[in-house]
Amino acid sequence: MAQHETMRGVLSPVVTPFKADLTPDADRLAAQCRWLLSHNVGLAVFGTNSEANSISTDEKLVLLDHLVASGVDPKRMMPGTGCCAVSDSVRLSKHAVGLGVGGVLMLPPFYYKGVSDEGLFRNFAQVIEGVGDDRLRIYLYHIPPVSQVPITLGLIERLLKEFPGIVVGVKDSSGDWSNTKAMLDAFPGFGVFAGSEGFLLDNMRNGGMGCISATANINPGPIHELYANWESAEADAMQAALTELRQYVAQFPMIPSLKQIVAHYSGDPEWARLRPPLVELDAAQAADLVTGLQERGFTMPGLAEQQGAAD
Amino acid sequence: MAQHETMRGVLSPVVTPFKADLTPDADRLAAQCRWLLSHNVGLAVFGTNSEANSISTDEKLVLLDHLVASGVDPKRMMPGTGCCAVSDSVRLSKHAVGLGVGGVLMLPPFYYKGVSDEGLFRNFAQVIEGVGDDRLRIYLYHIPPVSQVPITLGLIERLLKEFPGIVVGVKDSSGDWSNTKAMLDAFPGFGVFAGSEGFLLDNMRNGGMGCISATANINPGPIHELYANWESAEADAMQAALTELRQYVAQFPMIPSLKQIVAHYSGDPEWARLRPPLVELDAAQAADLVTGLQERGFTMPGLAEQQGAAD
Repeated sequence: MAQHETMRGVLSPVVTPFKADLTPDADRLAAQCRWLLSHNVGLAVFGTNSEANSISTDEKLVLLDHLVASGVDPKRMMPGTGCCAVSDSVRLSKHAVGLGVGGVLMLPPFYYKGVSDEGLFRNFAQVIEGVGDDRLRIYLYHIPPVSQVPITLGLIERLLKEFPGIVVGVKDSSGDWSNTKAMLDAFPGFGVFAGSEGFLLDNMRNGGMGCISATANINPGPIHELYANWESAEADAMQAALTELRQYVAQFPMIPSLKQIVAHYSGDPEWARLRPPLVELDAAQAADLVTGLQERGFTMPGLAEQQGAAD
Repeated sequence: MAQHETMRGVLSPVVTPFKADLTPDADRLAAQCRWLLSHNVGLAVFGTNSEANSISTDEKLVLLDHLVASGVDPKRMMPGTGCCAVSDSVRLSKHAVGLGVGGVLMLPPFYYKGVSDEGLFRNFAQVIEGVGDDRLRIYLYHIPPVSQVPITLGLIERLLKEFPGIVVGVKDSSGDWSNTKAMLDAFPGFGVFAGSEGFLLDNMRNGGMGCISATANINPGPIHELYANWESAEADAMQAALTELRQYVAQFPMIPSLKQIVAHYSGDPEWARLRPPLVELDAAQAADLVTGLQERGFTMPGLAEQQGAAD
């Protein structure tokens, strides 16, 4: 499937740094992207773990331009471009495609609940028409625990029939492997990404593309190692180690924890900041989190150097 | 409470008309606002029933400017300005206050679920600081069935303590009268609006300000009549009639139905259009809906003339 060429493997919903005035910090973000790429992890910027929906469309356009201008390869980027307002989704997706991104990861509009597949189909159809660019590659973003608006198998089937080669994949963050498996079984060749590395090996063994995972922000190298060696004899042991680390981190609030870990291992406390409605870990939580990582011999090789180069 | 002077009574989350290309139709919206004002109903533009979250911040700014430029009294407006991104909420609220609106109705950021009151407090605090204008009057918007993010009594208490005279009221769309009653009891003088006219009389009898109701889009005169005469002997009978009509309409999908009713009674089928993810009623539903209204002797006096003047 040539269409997935640059979008296979492991991607990270890159955490977004904010300055003291809570405006996005484009330089620190670019440094983080370079660090992730150096560990073979692609860039699902503007994901849930990026606090994407806490950032305006205008701010996202500026960040995208800055990343590309600073040398980050757009082909390795899969920015989140699905907004509540279809006009925002069109504007952001069109701009991203114009920059040459490998794909876009698209949430359904998520304010209204209990909406019909017909309404969601129209949303995606209107984005595709509004972007009007054959280079558009859409990965649908199924994350019902947060969005509360699911991407059903029936919707995928209809989109694939109507827009082959444009709607090319999905990120399944349902946390339900049976749903991911159903997608793999129903749509051979469709680009199915597991929503975390917890299902990476299962996904690869069933024809999936890889994973897009929160914890790829902090553990990119080992997660990529499993992706690259999923057929090896060590794969199950690698999966078990990844899962253990992820489960440890997941005991803490995920997004504040990712930023705290980046702050600690880069030596740059600025990274711990979040936009409301999210709040940082308190001092005791932060200390507990890092202690457990140290006990596990956890490291983030090259991070301090990469971030230091951004100052 | 002088602060509620222009914001008492009945307000409508004004339905937003869209052109064939699904861009907002500012002229039809202005005509609708004038019609509502002629029936003594204020303008909670950009509410849930306005499809506000299906409209971008840029589009909202254009609509607000157009309404005021076309002579709609900003003091009678309470636009919804609460977005997922605090930067959007600041931009929209600041612009609205600059236009002289009577107040703003503010959703909490609604993408992340299970967030803390501390995080929500920071969101509102940052909006207030970012707007930086003493004329700002915030009505909090509690609509957990849709937003899934509640405005708790504890959050209101903290905001009232920190921002007296700025945070001045709430719209309670929980559908739970005991919650509205708890707000009225806990915060005397706080501007509590019922989320529908179903609780209008109860709200007035307990010190509330009025209601902000979907069905005020179609039935403004009679709802205002109850507001204006809630202490009269006929109040209970008036409430019963309003409730019966509301319950009838609520058997159909609310937002498509409101637009269908405006389309039918204005003689302007353009009004039936919605942005995805919402979809219009099918022909059978639309016919059923209108038949039931006709059986009830329902009318929208002056609507066709008002909308006709917009062409």
